[in-house]
Amino acid sequence: MDILFLGTSAGVPTRARNVTATAIRKRNAKTWVLVDCGEGTQQRVLRTSLSLNRLDAILITHVHGDHCYGLPGLLSSASMMGRETPLTIVGPQPIRAFLEAVQATTGLHLTFPIEFVDVERLPADFRTSDFAVEASALSHGVASHGYALVERGIQRKLDTRRLEALGVARGPAWGRLHRGEDILLEDGTRVTSDEVLLPARGARKVVIAGDNDTPKLLEGLCAGADVLVHEATYTREIVDRLGTDNGHSTAEAVAAFARDIGLPNLVLTHFSPRYQHDRGVTPSIADIEREARDHYRGTLWLANDFDVYRLSRDGRLCHAGPTRS
Amino acid sequence: MDILFLGTSAGVPTRARNVTATAIRKRNAKTWVLVDCGEGTQQRVLRTSLSLNRLDAILITHVHGDHCYGLPGLLSSASMMGRETPLTIVGPQPIRAFLEAVQATTGLHLTFPIEFVDVERLPADFRTSDFAVEASALSHGVASHGYALVERGIQRKLDTRRLEALGVARGPAWGRLHRGEDILLEDGTRVTSDEVLLPARGARKVVIAGDNDTPKLLEGLCAGADVLVHEATYTREIVDRLGTDNGHSTAEAVAAFARDIGLPNLVLTHFSPRYQHDRGVTPSIADIEREARDHYRGTLWLANDFDVYRLSRDGRLCHAGPTRS
Repeated sequence: MDILFLGTSAGVPTRARNVTATAIRKRNAKTWVLVDCGEGTQQRVLRTSLSLNRLDAILITHVHGDHCYGLPGLLSSASMMGRETPLTIVGPQPIRAFLEAVQATTGLHLTFPIEFVDVERLPADFRTSDFAVEASALSHGVASHGYALVERGIQRKLDTRRLEALGVARGPAWGRLHRGEDILLEDGTRVTSDEVLLPARGARKVVIAGDNDTPKLLEGLCAGADVLVHEATYTREIVDRLGTDNGHSTAEAVAAFARDIGLPNLVLTHFSPRYQHDRGVTPSIADIEREARDHYRGTLWLANDFDVYRLSRDGRLCHAGPTRS
Repeated sequence: MDILFLGTSAGVPTRARNVTATAIRKRNAKTWVLVDCGEGTQQRVLRTSLSLNRLDAILITHVHGDHCYGLPGLLSSASMMGRETPLTIVGPQPIRAFLEAVQATTGLHLTFPIEFVDVERLPADFRTSDFAVEASALSHGVASHGYALVERGIQRKLDTRRLEALGVARGPAWGRLHRGEDILLEDGTRVTSDEVLLPARGARKVVIAGDNDTPKLLEGLCAGADVLVHEATYTREIVDRLGTDNGHSTAEAVAAFARDIGLPNLVLTHFSPRYQHDRGVTPSIADIEREARDHYRGTLWLANDFDVYRLSRDGRLCHAGPTRS
């Protein structure tokens, strides 16, 4: 599973970081899912291998502009490119009101249907092509949510030793058993698909949170998660000094939460523009990293725009380089 | 006067061209004016020397998304940067409805007042800090307008020969006369400011048009204009072959209009993404240029993102290089 960061700045874009948007896709999958869509997301998508025609669903965490103002333009461009496939958008109700108001006031006609799903009423069996999706309410002044994406369609492998022991000759029968069919051997013995398939490996799970001042609210959603992507808008030091956190989390709070639940991989994003990339300037992104590492010993990444993080089947999260082209 | 192109693509952004936005400012002026504001305009502004705090007015030509979807994010960012100065937005009524709907549905609170001016009721004496602004209705399916910006505050120079002939000694008296004051010489002779100031040079005039399928509608607005900036979304050849122009102009139509009115400088922009920059690919931007040159012998430019065109006091329009940083 690949997580692609299309925007990692909080509130306003900077020259290096656009406002929030994150793409997630299974490796070699045809489609992808977008979580949040700040202004300029479609321009970021143009610089990746992602296609708006293959976008399977958009999950919006909350209605603040830096997480949703890119929606109308992205939908408009998908229309102009001739998309006809329906597109699912999951989000809080104000997202629906926002989109409908923009469509009504600017004459935006789409060539494909939007299927809006209210995140507060997300069905328990909600699925995209590649992921089962769960959501959980967070704390941020306006309704904000986190999304868990659990991979679907994990293929069980054939137990070749067992096949040989049962005397099933290598050939078309193996293929039928792998596809889930049962077969009859020449001597009349029935071999079921289930008995010759190895147990499925655990499904990978990635949680992508919206803006949130209380990481503990993600405890349930993070059960069994391999990765949490969470905002770390500020450091504790800045919040203590300036006395404001605006409903956001510090690196310390997120790192401590990840430590407490034993999370293996944490990716921080959504950094206040006050944190500069240049390590010589204070405060810098390096301060956020330092504060997080003081509280968390798992695999930690601080996302940059165009970063791709690859979650392997054994649950390791690697930086797979920038996707920018 | 400098014209800065922040987006030159029609309908959808490409990797090289963002959707429409054009900045205009007098050289060395503190403030600037933005004409149109497609999605991602604020990100383009970040790569120039322009500041949202110094933005004097926004003129919107029409309500299509590629000309206005950048407004909410740009206003939001100006707020987060602490802008308090009122901002004038001129445009058709649907722009006001669009902005109000986005503010209402996404909780966008601005730290500065918006003074909305309906372009259909633009006062004859409407002015920004540096420009007198006129508007004219165009033809494009939805209400679309062109704007003329005429420079204000042209300073008259002192007629030094006349001063010497009148016996006014070089010194503070010259400064007072230059500032518009009259003076009394020692012998009691009154010297008026007006009689020792040279006639003002002509004010420069730039017309920036919205999407428009009938260039002739700009005839009045272009009277005495030094520069016309107009869309050339297609070439005649493509429109003839594909039978669609969607309310836009061809390079041929704009060039022929500019020729017919004796316009000295023409800048084409808003190119359909089908025209590639690579001259080896057909159709290309070079085809648009060729078609325009076949019909127009004045100074012609085809705008690229970040291009700056400088209009000198003697009415020449030069390419002043990319502003990108």
